[in-house]
Amino acid sequence: MDKKALYKLSYGVFMLSTKVGSKVNGCITNTCMQVAGSPTRIAICVINTNYTCDLIKESGVFALTLLDQTAGFELIQHFGFQSGRDVDKFANLRLPEDVNGIPYLAWQACAVISGKVTNSLDLGTHTMFIAEVVDAKVLSEEAPLTYADYQDHVKPKKKEAKEQRPIKGFRCRICGYVYEGPVLPEDFLCPLCEHGPEDFEPVFAD
Amino acid sequence: MDKKALYKLSYGVFMLSTKVGSKVNGCITNTCMQVAGSPTRIAICVINTNYTCDLIKESGVFALTLLDQTAGFELIQHFGFQSGRDVDKFANLRLPEDVNGIPYLAWQACAVISGKVTNSLDLGTHTMFIAEVVDAKVLSEEAPLTYADYQDHVKPKKKEAKEQRPIKGFRCRICGYVYEGPVLPEDFLCPLCEHGPEDFEPVFAD
Repeated sequence: MDKKALYKLSYGVFMLSTKVGSKVNGCITNTCMQVAGSPTRIAICVINTNYTCDLIKESGVFALTLLDQTAGFELIQHFGFQSGRDVDKFANLRLPEDVNGIPYLAWQACAVISGKVTNSLDLGTHTMFIAEVVDAKVLSEEAPLTYADYQDHVKPKKKEAKEQRPIKGFRCRICGYVYEGPVLPEDFLCPLCEHGPEDFEPVFAD
Repeated sequence: MDKKALYKLSYGVFMLSTKVGSKVNGCITNTCMQVAGSPTRIAICVINTNYTCDLIKESGVFALTLLDQTAGFELIQHFGFQSGRDVDKFANLRLPEDVNGIPYLAWQACAVISGKVTNSLDLGTHTMFIAEVVDAKVLSEEAPLTYADYQDHVKPKKKEAKEQRPIKGFRCRICGYVYEGPVLPEDFLCPLCEHGPEDFEPVFAD
């Protein structure tokens, strides 16, 4: 068997988030497909050792943010290369929430799908969650980021790889104003265009 | 809910084939993802009214051919736009067979994955089959065809759409020789390069 054949399957790049009580977590995943209509259902797979997997088993709901072609490596590194058991990945971000109150990414993303789990299947290494789509929004007209794009264009070559970089500020997506500092105040309004925290995206240190 | 958000999920384009006794059938599908390791397993979804779906329930095995960027609309039309209940889509094709004896496409394809069903889940409109990968082969170094590519580049615009076109000959993929006629003899050898029927791809009528 040539496992390289399996690399030819086409996938997207997603930020999968959920919430149990006040505990929010999210991670980067690649597997989601629509599996049925009437009602519309999708299936996602999550590694069993992943903290987000444990939390979805408890919450039964999730938001899947579909990253788009503008997504940078820092964003993927922030959600994908550290565990929610060690750090609060959402601590300094002011994000919109979906119908289930779960934060999702409004920037570097083309869509968000909100799921309510109807079946879950433990497959040993991974759990598959089948979920009814309870809401879905288009966020941008950019093309979705595929896993092949990530490997070819987004992921740094080995020698260029950098340490996890901290957030050093927040840029207003409306007018470009940059707030300097690692935490954007909850009630912050852009001094130039008066938009709120949900319209700011993080700027990572060089 | 904006269902356009679901169109942003990234999929491939596949020819899914199976065999029950001497009955072979195949169709075009878009959904496959790896769902677990140890052993490697994939999940596919097939519409319940589809003849291939009935046959996989009976056979418990399938071959998934991953189409590549060279795949033409005629190929997708041949397997996707007619039912195996009405025509034998494999009648005039001489195809290689996988470990389960199921024919797959050796041309216009970048890989083939052979699956043995371990779970099946009826979701109303579709059935999901989870299968152990029992074999996998890389067939070409061309990039996989994605569903977005199909929509953007392969599918004819409405006014250009043509009727289902019959096979008028077979082209040798090694040397380019064209055999004229709708059925390639089983023991045919290319008069130029002496390759056999498995190296010939169909040529459709204009």
